[in-house]
Amino acid sequence: MTTNTLFETLNPPVRLLMGPGPINAYPRVHQAISSALIGQYDPVMTGYMNQVQSLYRDVFETQNKQTMLVDGTARAGIEAVLVSVLKPGDKILIPVMGRFGHLLCEIAQRVGAVVKTIDIEWGEVCPPELVEKAIKEFGPKMLATVQGDTSTTMNQPLAEIGEICERYDVLFYCDATASIAGNELKIDEWKLDAVSAGLQKCLGGPSGSAPITLSDQCAEVITRRKHIEAGIRADHHTAGSDAIIQSNYFDLAMIMDYWGPERLNHHTEATSMLYAARECARIFLEEGSENVVARHKQAGDAMAKGLQAMGLTLFGNQSYKMNNVVGVYIPEGLDGDKVRQELLLCFGIEIGTSFGPLHGKIWRIGTMGFNARQECVLTTLAALESVLLKHKVKINPGQAVTTAMQHFSV
Amino acid sequence: MTTNTLFETLNPPVRLLMGPGPINAYPRVHQAISSALIGQYDPVMTGYMNQVQSLYRDVFETQNKQTMLVDGTARAGIEAVLVSVLKPGDKILIPVMGRFGHLLCEIAQRVGAVVKTIDIEWGEVCPPELVEKAIKEFGPKMLATVQGDTSTTMNQPLAEIGEICERYDVLFYCDATASIAGNELKIDEWKLDAVSAGLQKCLGGPSGSAPITLSDQCAEVITRRKHIEAGIRADHHTAGSDAIIQSNYFDLAMIMDYWGPERLNHHTEATSMLYAARECARIFLEEGSENVVARHKQAGDAMAKGLQAMGLTLFGNQSYKMNNVVGVYIPEGLDGDKVRQELLLCFGIEIGTSFGPLHGKIWRIGTMGFNARQECVLTTLAALESVLLKHKVKINPGQAVTTAMQHFSV
Repeated sequence: MTTNTLFETLNPPVRLLMGPGPINAYPRVHQAISSALIGQYDPVMTGYMNQVQSLYRDVFETQNKQTMLVDGTARAGIEAVLVSVLKPGDKILIPVMGRFGHLLCEIAQRVGAVVKTIDIEWGEVCPPELVEKAIKEFGPKMLATVQGDTSTTMNQPLAEIGEICERYDVLFYCDATASIAGNELKIDEWKLDAVSAGLQKCLGGPSGSAPITLSDQCAEVITRRKHIEAGIRADHHTAGSDAIIQSNYFDLAMIMDYWGPERLNHHTEATSMLYAARECARIFLEEGSENVVARHKQAGDAMAKGLQAMGLTLFGNQSYKMNNVVGVYIPEGLDGDKVRQELLLCFGIEIGTSFGPLHGKIWRIGTMGFNARQECVLTTLAALESVLLKHKVKINPGQAVTTAMQHFSV
Repeated sequence: MTTNTLFETLNPPVRLLMGPGPINAYPRVHQAISSALIGQYDPVMTGYMNQVQSLYRDVFETQNKQTMLVDGTARAGIEAVLVSVLKPGDKILIPVMGRFGHLLCEIAQRVGAVVKTIDIEWGEVCPPELVEKAIKEFGPKMLATVQGDTSTTMNQPLAEIGEICERYDVLFYCDATASIAGNELKIDEWKLDAVSAGLQKCLGGPSGSAPITLSDQCAEVITRRKHIEAGIRADHHTAGSDAIIQSNYFDLAMIMDYWGPERLNHHTEATSMLYAARECARIFLEEGSENVVARHKQAGDAMAKGLQAMGLTLFGNQSYKMNNVVGVYIPEGLDGDKVRQELLLCFGIEIGTSFGPLHGKIWRIGTMGFNARQECVLTTLAALESVLLKHKVKINPGQAVTTAMQHFSV
C-alpha cells in the first residue's frame, strides 16, 4: 500500500470569490475551525452547543427555543425541515421563482407530499394575493418559499405572506440560505415557523453546517412524530402519535433531543463545523444585524451601479434584488464562460455562471460576508472591465469604478 | 441587536480523547481544515475532489470508480447508501450485534425496506452459517452489517460473509465508521458492494464527512433510480427506469454525477471538511495501511493488557475485539460516571460510557488515530489507576503501566 499517490500538501490558491457563493470566509472563522477537538458530551462542548443555540436565536431574530444546527450543507437543513414536518400525502404550497424553488418542490415530492406550485417568471417575486388565493383553493399544511433565490437574484418579501399563513393556519417555511445576513430577516415578526440557512453566503463561513429554527407550533408538529432509536437506552419506544419521520439523519424530533437537556445521542456533532458556525454568528452579532445588512446593501448597490455605469444591463426586477448578488446580462456575442475563466486564471477572481433558462445569458456577481467590502467591489469591476475591453466589448471605460467609489463615499 | 451575548472567543480545553470517538485529530488535519476556501467549480477544487476519490480508493483498498464523500456525519453515509439502494418493500438482512446494528435496521425501516435481523448477543459476532441460512430463507436484496460496533467493541469478520453474498447475488454493505484504519478492511478482496465511514475514529479527523465507496454493481442499482433536478439545465427529465430515491440530499445517483465528469450541481461541497478528509487519507497512506493497523493493534493490545494487569475484567469475546477500543467492566459498587468525570476534569482525559444494556456496566476506552500511541495509553492507564485507588477499589497498583510498557517494547 506504499505505492499510492499521496498528492501534494494542501495549498489552495488565493481567490477572490465574487460569485453567488461559496465566498471567502472571515479570517476569524478559519481560526475557529482549526481549534482542538473535544468530546461530544464534554461539558465544554455541550456548553458550546447551548451558546450556538443562543447565538443563532439572535442571528435569526427569534425567541424560538428550537434553534440548532443540522450537520450538512444548506440543503440538508431544507430536507430536515420538509421531511420532519411533511407526512406522505400532506399538502404543501410552493411559490417557485427560480432554481431553489424547484429544489423545494423536488424535496417535498420525494418525501411524499402533494405539491402545488405558484409559478413566477424568473426575475420576479410572488405577490401575496396569489398566495392567499392558492391557500384558499388548495388548503396546504405548509407554505415553503426561498427568500433569496441566487439563481435569479430576487428577494421575496415575506411579511405579508407570514400574515396570510397565520390567518389560514398554514405553517410557513423559508429557505434563507442565500439571503440571511445580507438582507433583513425577522423570523418572529414575520411569523415564520421554520427557517433554514447555510454558512457559505453572507454569514461568511464554509459550506457544511445548516442553522435552522422552528417555532413552538412547528416543533410540536414534529414532536408528534417522535421516536427513540433502539439500542440507546433500555426503555426505547415510539413516543409520538403520528407517523414516523422517514429519515433518521434528518429526524428533527431526535435532533431536538440531542440539542436539548436530555442530550439523547443521535449523530456525532461535527465539532469543527460547529466551531465555524459559532464564529460566523459572533462576527455577525458583533457588527450588529442592521450594520451587516447595510454593508451588504452598500456593496451590492455599488456593484450594480458600477456594472450599469460600465454599460451593462442588469437582470430581473431591481425593486426586489437581493442586496448580496446581482445578475448582469452577458454582452451579445460574448462567450461568458471564457470571460469567467480569464477572470479566474488571470485575476484570481471568481464570478458566477447561471442555471437553467439563464445559462449563458447572465453572470451572477456576489458581494457577500467578508467580501461585502469596497476593495472587493472595485477590484472586481476593474478586472471585469479589463477583460471586456480585451474582448473589444463596447463599454464605457473608467465609469464603473468611479461610480462605485462615489457610492461608497456617500 | 447589539445587546446580544457574544460569549468568549473559542478556546476549547486540551483533552486527551480516549473514548470510542470522536478523538483528537492529527495536527496536520487542523492545518488542512483551516485552509483558504475556493469556489466549488474552481479547477483546483474539482482537482481536489478527484484526488479525494483517488485517495479513498487507496484507503478502502478498492478499484471502485464510485468513491466519494457524503457531506454529513458518519450516519449520513449510512443513510445515503440505504436510501439510494433500497426501494420501499425491498428486503434487507441485518445481523445485529450492538447499537449500530439497530441503527442500520432503523434507517432501513424508515426508507420502507422489509428488515429481517439476525440477533446476536452483545459481545459476540455473527457466524457466517447464520447468514447463509437467513439468506436462503429470506432472499434479501442486501445484507448490511457493522464491521466494528463500538457499543460492544466487537469486530465482525467479513470475508466469508462476502463470499456468501456473492454466491446468492445479495448486495453486501458494511458500516466501517469505527473500524476503518484501525482494523483490516479489504473492500474488493472481501467482495463488499458498499462501505461507508467517518473521519472521527481511526482516520484521525473531525466528525462531519462520510467517505463512501460503491461497487459497479451497486452503483448500477442506484443509477437505475436516477433523476435530474429541475431548474439546473434545460433538458431535465427523469432518466432512470426505477423508482426515484426518496431523499434528495442522500441521492447517490445525483452525488455520483456531482463527483463525476459531468459535475452536475447538487449540494455545495463542504470545502473545509473535504480538506480535512483529504489530509486524513494522506496521513493514513503515507504511514501505510498495514503499519497504521499494526499501530492500532499494538496500542489497543497494550491498553487491554494493562487493564487486565490492573485487575479489571474485559467485556466481550476477546477473539473478536476491535483493535481500537476495549470494553472494561466497571468495578462492582463504583459509580462509573463519577470516575469518568474525575478523569475528565482532573486529568483532561475522556473515556467512554456505554449504551443500552451495557450502560453503567462497562467503560469503553479507545486508542484511535493520533491517539494510538504509547504515551496516550500509559497516561490513561496511570490516571485511571489513580482515580480507582482514590475510590479504594482493590486493584494491583503499578501493574497496568508496567505491563503496557512491556507490550510496547516487544
